[in-house]
Amino acid sequence: MATTALRRIFIDSLSEVVPAEVRLRGWVYRLRILGKTAFVILRDCSGEAQCVISSEALRAYQLKVEDVVEIRGRVRAEPRSKTGCEVDISELRVLNRAGQNLPFQSASQVESIALEKLIQYRPLSLRTESVGDVFRIQAAILGSFRDALNRRRFTEIVTSKIVSGGTEGGSNLFEIKYFDRAAYLAQSPQFYKEHGVAGLERVYETGHVYRAEPHASSRHLTEYYSLDVEFGFIDGPEDVIQFERELLTDMFENLNRKYGDAIGKYRNELLPSMLEVPCWEFDACLEMLHAEFGRTGLVDDLDPEAERQLCERAARETGIPAVFVLGFPLAARPFYTAPRGPRGAAASFDLLFQGLEITTGGQRLHLREDLEAALRSRSIEPANFESHLAMFDLGMPPHGGFAIGLERLTCQVLNLPNVRQAVLYPRDRYKLTP
Amino acid sequence: MATTALRRIFIDSLSEVVPAEVRLRGWVYRLRILGKTAFVILRDCSGEAQCVISSEALRAYQLKVEDVVEIRGRVRAEPRSKTGCEVDISELRVLNRAGQNLPFQSASQVESIALEKLIQYRPLSLRTESVGDVFRIQAAILGSFRDALNRRRFTEIVTSKIVSGGTEGGSNLFEIKYFDRAAYLAQSPQFYKEHGVAGLERVYETGHVYRAEPHASSRHLTEYYSLDVEFGFIDGPEDVIQFERELLTDMFENLNRKYGDAIGKYRNELLPSMLEVPCWEFDACLEMLHAEFGRTGLVDDLDPEAERQLCERAARETGIPAVFVLGFPLAARPFYTAPRGPRGAAASFDLLFQGLEITTGGQRLHLREDLEAALRSRSIEPANFESHLAMFDLGMPPHGGFAIGLERLTCQVLNLPNVRQAVLYPRDRYKLTP
Repeated sequence: MATTALRRIFIDSLSEVVPAEVRLRGWVYRLRILGKTAFVILRDCSGEAQCVISSEALRAYQLKVEDVVEIRGRVRAEPRSKTGCEVDISELRVLNRAGQNLPFQSASQVESIALEKLIQYRPLSLRTESVGDVFRIQAAILGSFRDALNRRRFTEIVTSKIVSGGTEGGSNLFEIKYFDRAAYLAQSPQFYKEHGVAGLERVYETGHVYRAEPHASSRHLTEYYSLDVEFGFIDGPEDVIQFERELLTDMFENLNRKYGDAIGKYRNELLPSMLEVPCWEFDACLEMLHAEFGRTGLVDDLDPEAERQLCERAARETGIPAVFVLGFPLAARPFYTAPRGPRGAAASFDLLFQGLEITTGGQRLHLREDLEAALRSRSIEPANFESHLAMFDLGMPPHGGFAIGLERLTCQVLNLPNVRQAVLYPRDRYKLTP
Repeated sequence: MATTALRRIFIDSLSEVVPAEVRLRGWVYRLRILGKTAFVILRDCSGEAQCVISSEALRAYQLKVEDVVEIRGRVRAEPRSKTGCEVDISELRVLNRAGQNLPFQSASQVESIALEKLIQYRPLSLRTESVGDVFRIQAAILGSFRDALNRRRFTEIVTSKIVSGGTEGGSNLFEIKYFDRAAYLAQSPQFYKEHGVAGLERVYETGHVYRAEPHASSRHLTEYYSLDVEFGFIDGPEDVIQFERELLTDMFENLNRKYGDAIGKYRNELLPSMLEVPCWEFDACLEMLHAEFGRTGLVDDLDPEAERQLCERAARETGIPAVFVLGFPLAARPFYTAPRGPRGAAASFDLLFQGLEITTGGQRLHLREDLEAALRSRSIEPANFESHLAMFDLGMPPHGGFAIGLERLTCQVLNLPNVRQAVLYPRDRYKLTP
C-alpha cells in the first residue's frame, strides 16, 4: 500500500525535499481560518510547518489545538512562509485527540500561567517553546559538562545512592526501609568520588542527591541533581578554582554557540567567560560587606543577601557578577575539608554567580591521620568512619573537587527566579507529586 | 622558585616534550632494581612512564608500590622503552605513603582476587588495568548511548526518584520516611518518560532505579542504572526494535573504535553489528525451545536457560548470539503495555544478547480509555492512577520505548559472569557497603 510505504519525515527536513509527497506527524499548534482557506500549524520535535487545507475540509475533522495528527500532503516552496515552504494537505488523520478543556495551550504565554500549573501539566508546558527551552538548555548544560570533562581525561562514575550513613554527620538524612534494616539516601557522592580519585585520578558523576530539607524556599529542594567533580594531584584549592573557571567557560561557550538564540530570550547578554572571575578571601568579604553595605552578624557563612551583594561588587570590578569566596571557617565545613593556613580557615570555597551560590568545593584532607584528628576534634569517633578511612591507606593523592547544583546553574543561566522552574518534578517537604 | 614553577604534565605527553625537564605525579606501579640502576614505573590517569634512578638513591626513599609520588627529572628518548622515552629522576617526593600490607597491588592479576575483595578495595582495584578498563568502558557505553540519542533529536531528561507509588502495582518497592509520610524509590521512570514524550516527542534518561529484589543472584541488584528511551509517533513495536538495533550498532561501533584494544582482552571478537538481529515471536520461541531443546513448562516468560538457548540458536542462524523476542503474554506485562493482535499477546519485547536479557521494551497504550480498561481488567481502580491518566488528555502520541540495564550491558560487552563486576558499589539484599 503506497500510503504506509511513505515514511514520516521530520519537519525540519521539509525544505530539503521540496517538491514532494510527504507524511508528517505532530501536534496541532495553531489553527487559522482565513475565508475559504485554513492553516494548520503543525509541530514536532524538530520545528513547525504551515499546512494548508480548505476551511470546509478542515471542519469535517473537528480538529483542535493539541490534537495529535498525521498529515499527508505535498510540500512546495512558499517564500512568504518562515521556513520557505508549505504543505498542501491531502489527507489528515487524528492519532489521538486532546481533551476539551485544557488548562492552557502550547502556544500560550507561559508568563501568565502559575508555576504550580506548569508543573502539574508538564507534558503541555514542555510543549511550549519557553518551558521546552529551559529543559532543552538544561540537557545541553549536562551534555557540555560531561563533554568538557571527558576532554580533560575524567572518567564518569556511577555510585550508589543507598548508603548506610551520611557523609556529613547524619542530619537531614532520608531513611529507607531496606529489608530488615535502615539505610539512607545519599546526601552527596563525596566519599565515593574521593575513592574514585584514588583509583582513576579524575572522576565525575552526574546524579541525584537528597537532603531532608525542612524548608521549601525558592532555592531549596529535597532532591536535586549534582554535577560532581573530583581530581587528584592538586597543590591547593586555587587549582580547583582555576579548573572550575575553565570548565564553566568551556560549557558557557558551548551553550552560547548552540543555544544562543534561546538564551537571548532569557538574558540580555550571552553567557560570560568565567576566566577572570576573582577569588576573594572569606574574611575580606565580611569586611567588604561591612564597609560597603553595613552588614553585621555574618560569622561563619554568607546569607542570600550577602551573596547578592558580593556579586554586585564583583560585577562593578570585573564586569562579571561572579566571585569565588575562599577560606570559610573550617568549623563550618565538613570534617574532610583541608585547612587553609593556621588561623582556622578552610581550603574550601563557594562560587557565587549572579547572586546565588551554585558551587561548593575545595581541597580535602588526604592523610589518614589528619582525617582522624579532624573527626576527633568534632567529637566523632574515627572508628565510625573506618570503612572510609581505610581507603586512605591505598594510595590517596592530594585532591579536591566541587559540586554544581544543576537546577541552580540552570536558573542562573536563564535568569529564573525559582529553582522549581528548573526541575521537571520538584520535590520539597510538601511536594511528592506529580 | 623554579621548582614550583614547573607545571606537572601528564605521562602521555612525555614523548612530545623530549628532551626537557619535567614534573610528573602518580602512583608507583612497579619497582625494579637491576644492579646499580633502579626503575620506578610511574602511573597516572594517562599512562605509565619508566623513570630511572640509582639503586642507592632509591633506597633512601623507602619507596613502595602504590605510594603516591612526585618525580622531577629529565625526559630523553629511549627506543627500548614502550613509550619511546624514559625519565632520569633528579628529585623524588612522596606525597602520601600507601599502607604496609595492602590486600593486593595494582599490578596484581585480578583473576586471582576474590570479587568481594575487589569491591571492598575499589580504589585499588580501579587502579588495576583490568578493573579500570571495565569502568572506563562502562563510562564509554554511557557516553555513546547519550551521543547516539542526541544525534537522533532526543532530549535528556532528569526525573524524580522519590515517588508516591509504584508504576507496576506496588510490590518490590523500597519505602522512604518522607517527613510525616511514606514515599517510595522509583522502580522505573516509565510514567515520566511517557509524559516526556507528550512534551518533547523523544526523550531519554540515564539514572538509578530500585527494586526490593529478595534474590541476590549473579544477575540481580536492588539498585541499578537504567538507560531509558521513549519516543512518539511509532506505528508498532517493530519501530522500537529497529530503533534499538540501530542505536546499539552505533554504540558498539563507537566502543570498537575507541576501546577496541581493551575490549579485545575480554572477548574474541569486536562487538558485532546488531542490524541483522532477528525478531522472533514469543510463541514461536516456545515451540523452538520445545522442539530443539526439549524444554517444557515455560508459560508466560523465559528463564535464564531459555535465554541462553535462544541466543545459541540465533548465533547458528545469523552469526550473532542475539534475538528480540516479541509478543510476550499480555497478562505478564505491565498494564500500560499495548496488545499485539487479538490473542492475548503484548506488543512488548525483550532483547536477549549473549544469553542474557538486557532490554525490555515495547509499544505502550496511548488512549486513556484503553489504559482505564487495562487497569480494570487487572482489578485496579483507574482512579488510583488518575494523576497519570490525566496526562493522556494533553495530546499523547502513539509511543514506545525500552530500557537497557547498564550493568548487564557492560557484562555482556565484556563477558563478565557476575553483574557485580560491572557496578562500583553493588547493592543487594545483604549488601549495603562500601
